[in-house]
Amino acid sequence: MIREKSLKIIPLGGLGEVGRNMTLLEYNEAVLIIDMGLKMPEEDTPGIDYIVPNINYLSSLNKQSNGWRNRKQKNILGIVFTHGHYDHIGAIPYLIEKIWSPSLQFFASPLTRGIILKRQEEFPEHPQLKINEIKHGSIIELGPFRIEFFRQNHNIPDNFGLFIETPIGNILHTSDFKFDLNPVNELPTDFQKLRTLSEKKILLLMSDSTGAEENGHSLSEKTIEKNLEEIFQRSSGRIIAATFASLINRIQQIIFLSEKYGRKVIIEGYSIKNNMEMAEKLGRIKSKKGTIIKGKEIENYPDSKITILCTGAQGENQAVLMRLAQKRHARLRLKSGDSIILSSSVIPGNERTVQALKDAILRQGVKVFHYKMMDIHAGGHAQEQELKEMIKITKPKFFIPIHGQYSMLVAHAEIARDTGMPEKNIVIIENGQIIDLTPKTIFIKRTKVPSNYVMVDGLGVGDVGEVVLRDRHMLARDGMFVIVAVVDKQSGKVIGSPDVISRGFIYLRESKQLLKETRQQVIKIVDQAVTSGGTINWIYVKDEMRNKIGQFFYSKTKRRPMILPVVIEV
Amino acid sequence: MIREKSLKIIPLGGLGEVGRNMTLLEYNEAVLIIDMGLKMPEEDTPGIDYIVPNINYLSSLNKQSNGWRNRKQKNILGIVFTHGHYDHIGAIPYLIEKIWSPSLQFFASPLTRGIILKRQEEFPEHPQLKINEIKHGSIIELGPFRIEFFRQNHNIPDNFGLFIETPIGNILHTSDFKFDLNPVNELPTDFQKLRTLSEKKILLLMSDSTGAEENGHSLSEKTIEKNLEEIFQRSSGRIIAATFASLINRIQQIIFLSEKYGRKVIIEGYSIKNNMEMAEKLGRIKSKKGTIIKGKEIENYPDSKITILCTGAQGENQAVLMRLAQKRHARLRLKSGDSIILSSSVIPGNERTVQALKDAILRQGVKVFHYKMMDIHAGGHAQEQELKEMIKITKPKFFIPIHGQYSMLVAHAEIARDTGMPEKNIVIIENGQIIDLTPKTIFIKRTKVPSNYVMVDGLGVGDVGEVVLRDRHMLARDGMFVIVAVVDKQSGKVIGSPDVISRGFIYLRESKQLLKETRQQVIKIVDQAVTSGGTINWIYVKDEMRNKIGQFFYSKTKRRPMILPVVIEV
Repeated sequence: MIREKSLKIIPLGGLGEVGRNMTLLEYNEAVLIIDMGLKMPEEDTPGIDYIVPNINYLSSLNKQSNGWRNRKQKNILGIVFTHGHYDHIGAIPYLIEKIWSPSLQFFASPLTRGIILKRQEEFPEHPQLKINEIKHGSIIELGPFRIEFFRQNHNIPDNFGLFIETPIGNILHTSDFKFDLNPVNELPTDFQKLRTLSEKKILLLMSDSTGAEENGHSLSEKTIEKNLEEIFQRSSGRIIAATFASLINRIQQIIFLSEKYGRKVIIEGYSIKNNMEMAEKLGRIKSKKGTIIKGKEIENYPDSKITILCTGAQGENQAVLMRLAQKRHARLRLKSGDSIILSSSVIPGNERTVQALKDAILRQGVKVFHYKMMDIHAGGHAQEQELKEMIKITKPKFFIPIHGQYSMLVAHAEIARDTGMPEKNIVIIENGQIIDLTPKTIFIKRTKVPSNYVMVDGLGVGDVGEVVLRDRHMLARDGMFVIVAVVDKQSGKVIGSPDVISRGFIYLRESKQLLKETRQQVIKIVDQAVTSGGTINWIYVKDEMRNKIGQFFYSKTKRRPMILPVVIEV
Repeated sequence: MIREKSLKIIPLGGLGEVGRNMTLLEYNEAVLIIDMGLKMPEEDTPGIDYIVPNINYLSSLNKQSNGWRNRKQKNILGIVFTHGHYDHIGAIPYLIEKIWSPSLQFFASPLTRGIILKRQEEFPEHPQLKINEIKHGSIIELGPFRIEFFRQNHNIPDNFGLFIETPIGNILHTSDFKFDLNPVNELPTDFQKLRTLSEKKILLLMSDSTGAEENGHSLSEKTIEKNLEEIFQRSSGRIIAATFASLINRIQQIIFLSEKYGRKVIIEGYSIKNNMEMAEKLGRIKSKKGTIIKGKEIENYPDSKITILCTGAQGENQAVLMRLAQKRHARLRLKSGDSIILSSSVIPGNERTVQALKDAILRQGVKVFHYKMMDIHAGGHAQEQELKEMIKITKPKFFIPIHGQYSMLVAHAEIARDTGMPEKNIVIIENGQIIDLTPKTIFIKRTKVPSNYVMVDGLGVGDVGEVVLRDRHMLARDGMFVIVAVVDKQSGKVIGSPDVISRGFIYLRESKQLLKETRQQVIKIVDQAVTSGGTINWIYVKDEMRNKIGQFFYSKTKRRPMILPVVIEV
């Protein structure tokens, strides 16, 4: 066997977008997978639950029977996870079947492992995943790769960067990270560790770009805590703090402050309860005995002694906070005197929903504190200064900005240039591109691997494609119109009045005249086709209906519903 | 006739939302209308073109025949327009027919008038609107109202606040405004005028809340200009500046800077060309002879001497900039060396689209400057400091925050409190509420007038309602499934195989098994209904199809398409 002298790096998601992070390292036939994340649906993917990476490059190996392919599939050495956020682990249930084998190895920190396994409980038909626990300083060897995990600050505990030794050279993968000298619930950034690793020479740095467009330094969690404390000091009613269920460190802050100010904490919401339980069990969240109380115990305490910790800061329709705002919660109602804390930034695309949430709360005379008013949320991602520092510490020969929209990758590349890295050593790539790395060179291959959106809709993974989505868009815009014409086989005449069904187009009850004219047109179209003689080409007749009725509707309404003709010969 | 001693103020739009501004003042039976704006559709209004105010309160008068109603309708004294932005004038074509009479009076500044009339050209079937031109200091008398127009800075010229003398007291309506001591293309704020008006005693101030959640003072247009100039100084390639077609003052800045730096200006885009032409004709935009060149003349100049002024900073799909970014423009292509200026903020809801726009441009190696990088856009709305100043100058007895989301109205109310206004004199109201104002009291009536969204979809105004929209949402989420069963009248048996049509649900070609089972279920449902004896209740059979096929689909796919059964007896 001829050993290749280069390492391939293939991002399947997360580059040129936010979310569904997944990267492959391939040396000879050995593949290492880093993360397997999902991303949330977008406005132009109606009805979709999640978007996950396309892993055909890996899974097609299963379908092939020739020896080489098989050998290669077995060479999926393992999957290492950086941390427990869904954009890094969330795609597992939808993808794992395609590449699973009893020998497939998983590596994750205790908390990440806990979150993955908790999620898997929703998929009882899946095989049990055996996940090896790793910790700060753990070293694993997988084929040609030797991986050392080192802790990185973020907004969830147990987040690890990867120092990967390969036959080609050393790669440092930052994971999502920020530098924090005063973190909450975890140790400060271990710069010494970073320096020690860097002394081994970093051939390639792959660093988180999510905060690259933001100037300066990210906020320390201590600053956030100070501001949150101010709200605790000023509030005499209940405090209702909403955040992401996955922001374990923020949850810890709220609990800590509640204890400091003598408040009991009620946890509301399925996902946050789950995460709380697990994080407590693993010692990643600490609370004094008696701090956390059950929902029904709320009546035993005055408002000034109550904190409600819940989900829904993004205005999610089914989350606790939205149900409170819309008076749909089974037990709780907002009341004046409450202080609501929205401790999260607004995810792009959610702006209007969050505005609606705020307005609904304010209409009830309740106070709202959000991150635009004061620093009560930090994003968890390194900004310009920190990114520069990371490059300066690691002194890599080559640099690939990872995790983020294309504009963030570009901003991060510019930051790297500012540190003095030569332009040619900085490579911006996107999903599906293949990087060929040698000790002296880095270049992008011409070939690409599939990296398009794979959409999860209900039980279907990848079965909703372009066609179905395009139809959904059309249906959403102008609705649809079904015409059922029953035609006498002998005479070719339409029997009775054609049936019509329409949804999302016009309000039928108020459009009697339009319907009448439409039916007349349908009859005319069939008549014309029949009187033209010969055998009737029903495909042509249906096309005619689509076109002519379509034009008719457009002239009358300036709308273009989807027209679906059915012709039944009897 | 008994004269009422109070004035009614009825906002039909723009309070508790951004856009479709429209307010009524009513004294006895005389109604004054201020503005008639539209708002752009939202994510949850698919297929809708615009959203306009509900004017049933006014237009129902047309339909009534009793004397009182008729008298009242004739008492629509006139419509005054504050400025030429679509959220203040854009609903005219969709609403005017319902209240138009040959005697209806319109009042607008020359530019506003020009924009309204230009728009009306798209509606040749409408009667000619006779719009009286007003200018700074103009005073008109309409029934019990005496209105003085005074100029206010914004980001379009010819913007006027209203000083309205009524039998109850004086009202000052700010229009959209900001204080600008160094504006571009217009005079600085006339504080003296504001003071003079205020000396007459302001009973009620109605002031623009759009910027109330922003601290400090809005940026002066001069600051914007300085930053824009920096880009002009640094760019050696083409400058492509994208903004709103309605931001006349920004357009003027770009032209001015192009002249200063020896660049010719090409105007690209229908709406911006229209506005340019009109504004030039009215002297509201000035350019030297020869500055504006035609698109095809671009080849006569080096890139360093070219500015392209276009629309599309919001990522609008059909606007020039998006066509450039996606290489769909008929004549122009982006090239490296170009500098793109996005001189507008991102309208909430457009964040993802603008991100996609930026990324598409950056992928072509072109530089992008946007408002988050440097101050190259100002919103045109007064912020905290200015709002406070407005209240201090006008010293109103009562205060109603207008124009903006509920959270903005709340923030503005808080600003008013901070100036020392008594809580009870500050009234937050929303669309459809009725304010009853006397010289000594202000209160909200219990009754409301209709103020829901009226949707414009193609030629229909208001015909798309809850039902049609709900169907569009359902169709978008999971698509639809039509089942056509032809049943033999005699035997009650399904003839042949039921026809099915599906869109947006599953990809039919890859779902043969599911379709087969569905057809079998349909036949079974009909069979069961038939064998149960008696006359067949087809409504029941259709319900059964909807329910059972629906459950079947959900069990197989976890999706809930809209199921539309058609049964044809032959």
